[in-house]
Amino acid sequence: MTTERRWNGWGDASVHEELKPEARAFLAQAIGEGQPPSDATFAAALAQVDAQPSRLPPHPLVDTRAETRLRASFGQSMHDWLRLRFGVLGRVTDGVAFPSSSAEVRALLTWAREQGVQVLPSGGATSVAGHLTPVGAAPVLTLNMGRMMRLLDLDPVAQLARFEAGVAGPDLEAQLRAHGFTLGHFPQSFELSTLGGWVVTRSSGQQSARYGRIEQLFAGGTLQTPEREWTLPTFPASAAGPDLREWVLGSEGRIGVLTEASVRVTRAPVAERFVGIFFPDWASGLAAVRRLGQARLGLSMLRLANPAETFTTLQMAGHAGAIRWLERYLSLNGAGEGKCLLFAGFTGASAGAVRSMQRAAAAIWQEHGGVSTGTVLGRKWAQRRFANVYLRNALWDAGYAVDTMETACDWPRVDAMVHALETAGRGALARHGERTHCYTHLSHVYAQGSSVYSTFVYRIGADYDSALARWQSLKTAVGDAIVAQGGTITHQHGVGKDHARWLAAEKGATGMSAIAAMVREFDPQGVMARGNLLGDIE
Amino acid sequence: MTTERRWNGWGDASVHEELKPEARAFLAQAIGEGQPPSDATFAAALAQVDAQPSRLPPHPLVDTRAETRLRASFGQSMHDWLRLRFGVLGRVTDGVAFPSSSAEVRALLTWAREQGVQVLPSGGATSVAGHLTPVGAAPVLTLNMGRMMRLLDLDPVAQLARFEAGVAGPDLEAQLRAHGFTLGHFPQSFELSTLGGWVVTRSSGQQSARYGRIEQLFAGGTLQTPEREWTLPTFPASAAGPDLREWVLGSEGRIGVLTEASVRVTRAPVAERFVGIFFPDWASGLAAVRRLGQARLGLSMLRLANPAETFTTLQMAGHAGAIRWLERYLSLNGAGEGKCLLFAGFTGASAGAVRSMQRAAAAIWQEHGGVSTGTVLGRKWAQRRFANVYLRNALWDAGYAVDTMETACDWPRVDAMVHALETAGRGALARHGERTHCYTHLSHVYAQGSSVYSTFVYRIGADYDSALARWQSLKTAVGDAIVAQGGTITHQHGVGKDHARWLAAEKGATGMSAIAAMVREFDPQGVMARGNLLGDIE
Repeated sequence: MTTERRWNGWGDASVHEELKPEARAFLAQAIGEGQPPSDATFAAALAQVDAQPSRLPPHPLVDTRAETRLRASFGQSMHDWLRLRFGVLGRVTDGVAFPSSSAEVRALLTWAREQGVQVLPSGGATSVAGHLTPVGAAPVLTLNMGRMMRLLDLDPVAQLARFEAGVAGPDLEAQLRAHGFTLGHFPQSFELSTLGGWVVTRSSGQQSARYGRIEQLFAGGTLQTPEREWTLPTFPASAAGPDLREWVLGSEGRIGVLTEASVRVTRAPVAERFVGIFFPDWASGLAAVRRLGQARLGLSMLRLANPAETFTTLQMAGHAGAIRWLERYLSLNGAGEGKCLLFAGFTGASAGAVRSMQRAAAAIWQEHGGVSTGTVLGRKWAQRRFANVYLRNALWDAGYAVDTMETACDWPRVDAMVHALETAGRGALARHGERTHCYTHLSHVYAQGSSVYSTFVYRIGADYDSALARWQSLKTAVGDAIVAQGGTITHQHGVGKDHARWLAAEKGATGMSAIAAMVREFDPQGVMARGNLLGDIE
Repeated sequence: MTTERRWNGWGDASVHEELKPEARAFLAQAIGEGQPPSDATFAAALAQVDAQPSRLPPHPLVDTRAETRLRASFGQSMHDWLRLRFGVLGRVTDGVAFPSSSAEVRALLTWAREQGVQVLPSGGATSVAGHLTPVGAAPVLTLNMGRMMRLLDLDPVAQLARFEAGVAGPDLEAQLRAHGFTLGHFPQSFELSTLGGWVVTRSSGQQSARYGRIEQLFAGGTLQTPEREWTLPTFPASAAGPDLREWVLGSEGRIGVLTEASVRVTRAPVAERFVGIFFPDWASGLAAVRRLGQARLGLSMLRLANPAETFTTLQMAGHAGAIRWLERYLSLNGAGEGKCLLFAGFTGASAGAVRSMQRAAAAIWQEHGGVSTGTVLGRKWAQRRFANVYLRNALWDAGYAVDTMETACDWPRVDAMVHALETAGRGALARHGERTHCYTHLSHVYAQGSSVYSTFVYRIGADYDSALARWQSLKTAVGDAIVAQGGTITHQHGVGKDHARWLAAEKGATGMSAIAAMVREFDPQGVMARGNLLGDIE
């Protein structure tokens, strides 16, 4: 499969998602007509790269061509987008290596230490938190891990698969599926993001309720620290002091490069369905998902949209006629205005297991007024689970920016958190005289609480400065609200540079010092991924 | 409930387990007549403490009486036992404080730093790995956390309970049960061990398959580090860099004192049963538990005894007549000599849920020749789940030492591991001209692998030196075998001082340096729990 990656937006350049006319009309009415800025050309962007000559000494594994450097310097943070689209690139990486073995990574790290070069490991470059932005005074070498994508070993007895860490989601699943296994890790970025990226940013898949977050799936591996190779063996469990896998998880490139990872795999499920259930209102939906999340039923997914997101989903779907009929049916069953859509995932080793899970879950949602619409909407959701991100491109073309922020908190805080995030986002853009269309879903439900995932759609702004100001206001206000409401600054996107300033609110001064000490221990010369996690960007 | 703790053995001094005549006869035949040594008296032990005057400056919270110091200086390691029983105490702690608040812990830590005093936190003093042995040149203050036992907050919505960390198992469960909740953490030491001890040694309960290991249950808390107070907030999940709870888990007192812990609790189950199933042989039992462990059925326990442990269990049970009938029935059903006993736990919110779990599990065990004997044996096991430890006292009185060692490894290694541990144990004692009765069970079954828990019964030895030599040979040989076979040095007992020398085999030099750096970061003066985890005992 050869695809070309879009250089200034999401995904495969040949894939175009349409913004439906209904969606366009809805947004025009809600937040005003979009004013599409004119995008910088690829040639103009390359010229900007050329204006920053690479400061790297030559190395046979390092590519310093302008296009390679351009493509390696940006992720999917709104800050990345604004710089690319308006052609205000700022700092780009000095060169890119595409190592194809641990030995090459080792050699590059040694070279980088000797030459005083910063090393920035990169997986699928899907970060929405600024991980790939080069910072600091030293020249920066980006390590693109994408060539390290092989399945090295599959142990069907221990259900462990050892991969090179640069493998992307589809390649990982394809190699497992050939043996009847799945990892079951499906973040929205699945089509591009990599195993190594998932591990070092503590990624969470859409069906983590069944398969576990990457923390539960990562069983051990090999890291190339700046100074040496370090292998963490696999055990099913251990009480032998600190679990050092946990020091790799969330390390965001600061302690070395993960080159191999063993993951816990599962027999591919025989049966799976996603059911759409409507609740009359937010309170009943919230109560139902909490009970479902605490009932130990083995569901693979619970994903509850608030009224605004439910409304938006139905508005933007097109098919106005079918939607009218659906809404009439729901209204007759008690779910009218203010209704909330839940997608529940049922995954199992047999159709019978899935049926009995669904029966047990239905008994709970029915007590809260939930009305099932069967698998029609769920099938649609599953088909488009990785495609919806492409709407970001279409919205931009219509003059709209869309950004998301997410957190997790304990149940008693969830309702206020949703309110606070939307209010903060709306308030931030209002200070620029703009309206925001906000909506929220709970993407991952736990016994203890839930993630809260809010989307903000607003008009981009006429030029880079005004667009940046709008986005910075939004980001600041929502990040502050998350922390004020007792949430973690990120449930699934990682810290990078964009979230670093809020990290101390949850780690404390003691925790921040401890993380910095860990980074120093592994990387005494400060070679690795400067700026990520700790925000040490000067 | 006022009970007096046995000063030189396990548990409540008023509880006496009998060694059944059948068991005595069996052991005499298997490893020779026991030769009970004569135990040192309490008075003689106190005199040894008096001969080591406390070097602590006076402090109103510190008790330096001989009896208090004696009782605080030993855990349940065989090394502890030998020193107490033979009256060769060695180093004891210089004093004991029983703080009743975080503020008192704080004050004691500050005082200790100023006075150059080592601080050794202690929970239920059930360590079997030497955690409580004072080492190093400085005077040692033991912090007995047992007075800090209150439930501070119960949030039924988030299902979180915040406790003072010195609360012991029964007091914790009683306080939760009053509100309809359970933690479900039942290590064999449950009656004495404490929440804080569970957390800092990464404890695992017998029903961790349902409730999770303490790593999954510990949601956050407050630590008094040598320099300051540090609170880890509770989140259901987070991607915000390293999860600092994981730095507290397994820290074994080296980075501070855990004074409060929030734990994830569950509605107390409505239905629970433990079923005893016999397999014709080890291979079929092993195959069955692996499949059961990988089938995601939600079982609360899988505990498979090897033929030697199964035989021992039936031999030592007494009730020879009933056992004969049972064995005749089993033999007719294919489980004769070499049979293996599995206890499977089914725990759920309804009798129906438990029944359907058992049905699904039975379909699997039957494919491997498993014969259920219903709940008779399982009920017996559950009644005696915390009582069996008392047999250690009875065996000693009969002249026998009993020690256990445990590990966990991936499935492909489990069979060889069992063989290696028993062979190593037998060989070690053979070098002293002694026989060993060894048997093994898999106490915790995971999809990836299993714990392996071996018991070694052998004759104590006539005096301290010979008894110590026998035990050291055993410990060394089995520890070496664990590491050689690719297991972790401990699945559930922790590292302490006894296992520290094997830690580098799994952490690597890089990992050991990192752990030491973490300890230095939190405790730059080296005040805390010297010797634990890192084995820095000089």
